[in-house]
Amino acid sequence: MKLQKPTPMPFSKYKSFQDRIALDMRDRTWPDQLIRKAPRWLSTDLRDGNQALIDPMTPDRKRKMFDLLVKLGFKEIEVGFPAASQVDFDFVREIIEQDAIPDDVRISVLTQAREDLIERTVESLVGAQKPTVHLYNATAPVFRKVVFGFDGEGFDQTRDIATRGTQAVMKHAESLLGDADFGYQYSPEIFVDTEPEFALDIVGSVLDMWQPASGRETVVNLPATVERGTPNTYADQIEWFCRNMPYRDEVAVSLHPHNDRGTGVAAAEMGIMAGADRIEGCLFGNGERTGNLDLVTVALNLYTQGVDPELDFSDIDEVIHTVTECNQIGVHERHPYGGDLVFTSFSGSHQDAINKAFAAREKNANEQGVPVDLMEWDMPYLPVDPKDLGRSYEAIIRVNSQSGKGGVTYLLKSEYGLDLPRRMQVEFSRAVQQHTESGGEVSAEEIRRIFNHEYLPSDDQDNAWGRFQIVGLRTDSGTVDDSGASERVEVDLIVDGQERTYEGRGKGPIDALVKVLIDNFDVDVRLQDYTEHAIGSGADTMAAAYVELAVEDRVVWGAGLHSNITKASLKAVVSAVNRAARDRDGERER
Amino acid sequence: MKLQKPTPMPFSKYKSFQDRIALDMRDRTWPDQLIRKAPRWLSTDLRDGNQALIDPMTPDRKRKMFDLLVKLGFKEIEVGFPAASQVDFDFVREIIEQDAIPDDVRISVLTQAREDLIERTVESLVGAQKPTVHLYNATAPVFRKVVFGFDGEGFDQTRDIATRGTQAVMKHAESLLGDADFGYQYSPEIFVDTEPEFALDIVGSVLDMWQPASGRETVVNLPATVERGTPNTYADQIEWFCRNMPYRDEVAVSLHPHNDRGTGVAAAEMGIMAGADRIEGCLFGNGERTGNLDLVTVALNLYTQGVDPELDFSDIDEVIHTVTECNQIGVHERHPYGGDLVFTSFSGSHQDAINKAFAAREKNANEQGVPVDLMEWDMPYLPVDPKDLGRSYEAIIRVNSQSGKGGVTYLLKSEYGLDLPRRMQVEFSRAVQQHTESGGEVSAEEIRRIFNHEYLPSDDQDNAWGRFQIVGLRTDSGTVDDSGASERVEVDLIVDGQERTYEGRGKGPIDALVKVLIDNFDVDVRLQDYTEHAIGSGADTMAAAYVELAVEDRVVWGAGLHSNITKASLKAVVSAVNRAARDRDGERER
Repeated sequence: MKLQKPTPMPFSKYKSFQDRIALDMRDRTWPDQLIRKAPRWLSTDLRDGNQALIDPMTPDRKRKMFDLLVKLGFKEIEVGFPAASQVDFDFVREIIEQDAIPDDVRISVLTQAREDLIERTVESLVGAQKPTVHLYNATAPVFRKVVFGFDGEGFDQTRDIATRGTQAVMKHAESLLGDADFGYQYSPEIFVDTEPEFALDIVGSVLDMWQPASGRETVVNLPATVERGTPNTYADQIEWFCRNMPYRDEVAVSLHPHNDRGTGVAAAEMGIMAGADRIEGCLFGNGERTGNLDLVTVALNLYTQGVDPELDFSDIDEVIHTVTECNQIGVHERHPYGGDLVFTSFSGSHQDAINKAFAAREKNANEQGVPVDLMEWDMPYLPVDPKDLGRSYEAIIRVNSQSGKGGVTYLLKSEYGLDLPRRMQVEFSRAVQQHTESGGEVSAEEIRRIFNHEYLPSDDQDNAWGRFQIVGLRTDSGTVDDSGASERVEVDLIVDGQERTYEGRGKGPIDALVKVLIDNFDVDVRLQDYTEHAIGSGADTMAAAYVELAVEDRVVWGAGLHSNITKASLKAVVSAVNRAARDRDGERER
Repeated sequence: MKLQKPTPMPFSKYKSFQDRIALDMRDRTWPDQLIRKAPRWLSTDLRDGNQALIDPMTPDRKRKMFDLLVKLGFKEIEVGFPAASQVDFDFVREIIEQDAIPDDVRISVLTQAREDLIERTVESLVGAQKPTVHLYNATAPVFRKVVFGFDGEGFDQTRDIATRGTQAVMKHAESLLGDADFGYQYSPEIFVDTEPEFALDIVGSVLDMWQPASGRETVVNLPATVERGTPNTYADQIEWFCRNMPYRDEVAVSLHPHNDRGTGVAAAEMGIMAGADRIEGCLFGNGERTGNLDLVTVALNLYTQGVDPELDFSDIDEVIHTVTECNQIGVHERHPYGGDLVFTSFSGSHQDAINKAFAAREKNANEQGVPVDLMEWDMPYLPVDPKDLGRSYEAIIRVNSQSGKGGVTYLLKSEYGLDLPRRMQVEFSRAVQQHTESGGEVSAEEIRRIFNHEYLPSDDQDNAWGRFQIVGLRTDSGTVDDSGASERVEVDLIVDGQERTYEGRGKGPIDALVKVLIDNFDVDVRLQDYTEHAIGSGADTMAAAYVELAVEDRVVWGAGLHSNITKASLKAVVSAVNRAARDRDGERER
């Protein structure tokens, strides 16, 4: 029985999107389609994504993002809006002149449909091998009537803007980009709000002007710049458009969803089922307001269905690290595939099921003589193998704190100022559980004692343990050497009871210490994550540093506390390495 | 032309979900449906959401969440898993014994299908007016075969567990909950992975045992505990099930989507179109791994289509504040409806369109003699009126920093340690723009000068401005008085040039100062947000405090810097009030 009451909010000032855009698509075919291959991907991180940042990317951050996109396998990258931004113009010139664009990567740039802007836009592309000009103009009724104030419906004026713009692109491209394999992309803005027949009309006129042909790169992009209806309405619009558009075989149909209703991913997937060829979006869904479509999620959704995404997310933490640095916006703990908590099961029955299924998987692999990592993945509660994304199994099974009052990490933070990173919280809660399996309430002091014993064993006079201990430290941030290293460290280490001084070089002190460990002790160590914060204030201020290391095949956290931030961070590295060695030795003994 | 290369990731170990669950639904009707009324909502924040926290809620946080849910209008609330957790058991007892459950709110609790657990579960509900027992058991093949290791398909054993569990619920409910309007909910876990015919079979057996009837509260819940396929597959499964299930008219069909593929919202919406009656989820999508369905997004998606959501999100920042406090997990900047950046347009053409449409809306309202807030909402780039959610228009139109190197907030943070909250960054970037419209690069010092002038006018000897200035402060955290206030403050204020001492009481110093302002100066002030951080270390450590205030009909930020954290926060309140007064006076003069 429904007990709910009317809301006091003024809902009746809104109208239904479906009532506005009436398409009879009872003969739709998309719900019976299955996506069996990856679409073409276009990253607009450097354009639509960058435009939506409070602090747009500096040239350095832009370049980092571009290099990451290339590394991940993107072959179509929208690199800016050069006529609207000098920074963007300069960036396009930089990657062309420095030859940073691989031969098989097509770059594109956005422009409005004014001839002076178009000329400037095309100028930015001189020297590129595969440049595309992306022209848009506003076609939706609210723009034609309210924003531009055209008389009547404004169809003719709007169509003129698009075809003249197209003509101008052709003129300037032919004169300035003669030898290049230049392409053209047109977007009727906002497609989803535009009368379907008019969208078809204007796209037809643009294509008649451009003359699509085989080998002539042509894209029609259909933006849901604002997400308006349930995602099936977008799919209906796309199927209708693909069915009715001219030059269908010579033109790639591209989707450009946003996420205002939280259904951008669904809209993209259904749009592909409805016949589109390409998806535009950003890594982890950066972009205006609620963001552009999240390319990572769509690609990995395909991956979990056995479809090659044609992108490489095998080190997802590196991707997150770079994206966060470039955008200055983080990835949420529960973001699909990338979030810190998405491979963690807290529920007891989930954990039990996962444990049993892991055991069965290993048994089956042995029986079949197949490497366990290549066995078919059919695990309860884990739609993807964390190892495929560079994550470890360590975090999968964790138990919420057993302390009666407040949680483990809450107490560590409120009582001791230790603010652990999310994935480390998950790791540490298991350590607490191991020490407290007998049950009962755990005090803050007890938690701190467990923390010290686990992460800071050499600070613990009575219970010190660990192969390595860092005693002294001298650093020298000097000149950059041939390998790009600018930092020299001298560390006094006690190793297996013997003190000796080691020297290392790296991009920073952590990097230098990692090199010391690799070169002298034959351990395979790679830095995954690093954070630090201050504790307290005044003369007693301490730095707390946390590092996540991949040590051989395991991923472990370490912590360091010291009044000197550099020493704290190096202690954290040693802490992680000691823990990994202890766990490995523990396994051997079993 | 597709240029993409194969991924190195081992995609072929995954199988397609659709190939596994083969339903022929070519006669599906859901894609032609439109949602015209709100579904029934069930919040599982206190059960599935709480279970997925590193630090599960303390009894205090649980109660805050429960009271919020009631206030928002939820009439069905899953309050815990009492047989699995003593904290949950105690919480259920607390809200029953303290009479905290309104008469029209139904609470439910989860249990596994073991008789001892069921008895304990029912015991927790004694005294509740509308209690529901929610029983689940694992029905999917991986559980039957791998986790439980049943022989063959394990259909009979699995069905027995469900029907015996149902019988036990009936027995204990009849003996312990005699007078109550008790209800029953059954979940085949994981529904989406279960053979559809077997799901139907087991649900039919459970219902035969329970005997649904009009007025007898009965729910069948169909969980997508892990999201497996594109959301249309869930809709197909739901439509098929609703079409074939027995007792359809006496039973509410409930959806329980998760968000592993980022399409939980779409799955819920399509599941409703496919015939379901109720949705289970959490506020802002908390829950295991990628989270449960986000109830806020689904409700406000309905709202923007002119459908009464039967929930009240007219103060979304209060909801975010409480949810963040209870879950210790924030809401992402780009989260639909709730994120700090979702009403902000940075793109110049977007801004231009919004400005023109706002002007046209006001003109039309005047011409029609209709209050502008009730005019039909048809705005480019804004699917919802921010005012309806308690947000202001201030943040809608902002310009990215014009500084050539690095952004405004980046420089403030890196050079001065001032780490502004996201919404305040957006506000401040406009102030910078107003001071720099002549163009050119803005230095960090210039940005700091603008910040000081804008937010800290009384610290600025040469350009001091503002109606209020705080000079002295004495606080007394004493005993709680009748109104629940525990804090007494005495502030020495200079007001319009005159210094006087005022006394106020409140739950904290900010609350007390707000009361001073309301009582003595007839200003309508309400605290929306508050954050603080330390700057520097050692003897010079300063506290920076930022507050967001609703002052009459505008929402403004204020900042305070002081070595004493309390004084910093009160200075921030005064800063915001001064800014609001200045802006209002400025408007009058125009």
